[in-house]
Amino acid sequence: MKVTILGAAGFLGRKLAARLAQSGRLGGNDVAALTLFDAAMPASLPDAPFPVRCLQGDIGDPAAALPPGTDVVFHLAAVVSAQAEADYALGLRVNLHGALAVAEACRHLAEAGAKAPRVVFTSSVATFSGGQDAQLADDARQLPANSYGAQKAAAELLLADASRRGFLDLVSLRLPTVIIRPGRPNRAASSFFSAILREPLLGLPADLPVGDDFAAWVASPRRVVDWLVHAAALNTEGLGIDRGVNPPGLSVTVAHMLQALDGARPGAAALVRHAPDPDVAAIVGTWPAAFEPFRARTLGFSAHEPLADLVAAFIADDLDATRAERGVS
Amino acid sequence: MKVTILGAAGFLGRKLAARLAQSGRLGGNDVAALTLFDAAMPASLPDAPFPVRCLQGDIGDPAAALPPGTDVVFHLAAVVSAQAEADYALGLRVNLHGALAVAEACRHLAEAGAKAPRVVFTSSVATFSGGQDAQLADDARQLPANSYGAQKAAAELLLADASRRGFLDLVSLRLPTVIIRPGRPNRAASSFFSAILREPLLGLPADLPVGDDFAAWVASPRRVVDWLVHAAALNTEGLGIDRGVNPPGLSVTVAHMLQALDGARPGAAALVRHAPDPDVAAIVGTWPAAFEPFRARTLGFSAHEPLADLVAAFIADDLDATRAERGVS
Repeated sequence: MKVTILGAAGFLGRKLAARLAQSGRLGGNDVAALTLFDAAMPASLPDAPFPVRCLQGDIGDPAAALPPGTDVVFHLAAVVSAQAEADYALGLRVNLHGALAVAEACRHLAEAGAKAPRVVFTSSVATFSGGQDAQLADDARQLPANSYGAQKAAAELLLADASRRGFLDLVSLRLPTVIIRPGRPNRAASSFFSAILREPLLGLPADLPVGDDFAAWVASPRRVVDWLVHAAALNTEGLGIDRGVNPPGLSVTVAHMLQALDGARPGAAALVRHAPDPDVAAIVGTWPAAFEPFRARTLGFSAHEPLADLVAAFIADDLDATRAERGVS
Repeated sequence: MKVTILGAAGFLGRKLAARLAQSGRLGGNDVAALTLFDAAMPASLPDAPFPVRCLQGDIGDPAAALPPGTDVVFHLAAVVSAQAEADYALGLRVNLHGALAVAEACRHLAEAGAKAPRVVFTSSVATFSGGQDAQLADDARQLPANSYGAQKAAAELLLADASRRGFLDLVSLRLPTVIIRPGRPNRAASSFFSAILREPLLGLPADLPVGDDFAAWVASPRRVVDWLVHAAALNTEGLGIDRGVNPPGLSVTVAHMLQALDGARPGAAALVRHAPDPDVAAIVGTWPAAFEPFRARTLGFSAHEPLADLVAAFIADDLDATRAERGVS
């Protein structure tokens, strides 16, 4: 099974590549070769039981990363929400035209007689609106209230059309906000959801731009990697033209998160400072706080673990590396 | 008031330009100048009470048609459904990238300090699916089953985002199938809806690719021009980020249409031959046959006239010109 990860140098890309290297398998088959592609050169995987090819390139021209015979493409490359809001042209180029370029590369493969690869596309909760009171059903309309969400929703439509035409075989996962991100704060408007847990676990203060009762739809990186792997091997025959899946995340409030933090490290929540930020609140405030993900459950996407397990997994998987990266003792 | 029509040489573009020339007004203001833009040089309007500028150009570069001070842009340029299905790249180029180019031209105007023009975008019933049994509410999800619909739905999202950012002020009208088109059959999958009325009125036979009980969501060109003019002057403050409107068309069956035809010209329906076409049926069969357009009514979009009036209006407005164009005596 030949696999490609676009956006392989990012947080989820590295987690996914590490999972594949560890198991050597995807959807019941051996991974025969893995291509890692990103704007920054992805790190190789010296312990992988299969050959790994690392490519640096622009998502506007991903053809080199999709050789004939590619079975699965994970398209994770993206410009995140606050950055896409700040730099409209960059967001369009990566989030929209990047997806079109992936469809085009698949079309060229298909027209040359190669098989249509499974494309697993990471869309987002930000493609929806509805805000704090929302509890969205599987057929909820995508009415994005930010450029990132608009670009992701448009990309979903165009990739779904390419899938219908047989150029590729799509599964779009509208990912919840992924917490706890390791490393440093990034330019996602949702960055604080990770920061209010990660920074105190490092012994550092963190700013909270919204109130304690603010609710969000979240998922752990472990669970997201599970979903990506499941989507790669999903039988898509029953999906019809609807290739979008709202996976079963967790609806949690900030207060829940701070409780879980104190459960893992008593007193750590005291490092979180209230620092209202209307710009951040305006973006994340439109995102729906809960879904009813019946379709995803029917399709076998695994249910989410409790919040305490999510915090424990960060401590087990990522805290030491984050400490080292940040130079925190 | 400075007005631009993109796609001005098409059927609706010509009707709209003629309406503006006739009234000299738009939204309670005098039209000060009109720019007509299309891939084929649009015909001028010698009797218009305002200056008319005709431009031939590609929709990928519409900037010349949007001078600073433009108040209203009607973006009607499109590659129709069956053609977009047959030529994927052309459909993407015109229907998606054309809309992006319009947004980009408006962004340049806005960034140079000019006002954000009202953009009236013609989207389509083809952005929805659901088929014969559908009765779609205003918050129905757009799940297109053809490339034309996917491109239009993606364009709606990206134009709505440009509107939210203040580059333009959008109203997207998801037009029903417009009947009765004058002239010759075109490459829309829905072309037969016009042909089964127009051809018999010319004394010519017409093929019917679907059954008599097939239902469709239709509108007359007169009514569509009314809606376009209404959208140009609509107060958009109450719309929020949702700039899509499903206007109040008519849900009719083929049998209703043939009755109306016989009502206008007794015996004419006998010229319609059953000629099942699975390719055409596959496209139009996914389009919803009815809507519940409450939002459009609340916003003041005028209700549709009865089918008999639609047929009579074609006879009054277009039959002679079509006869002349087609060389039918």
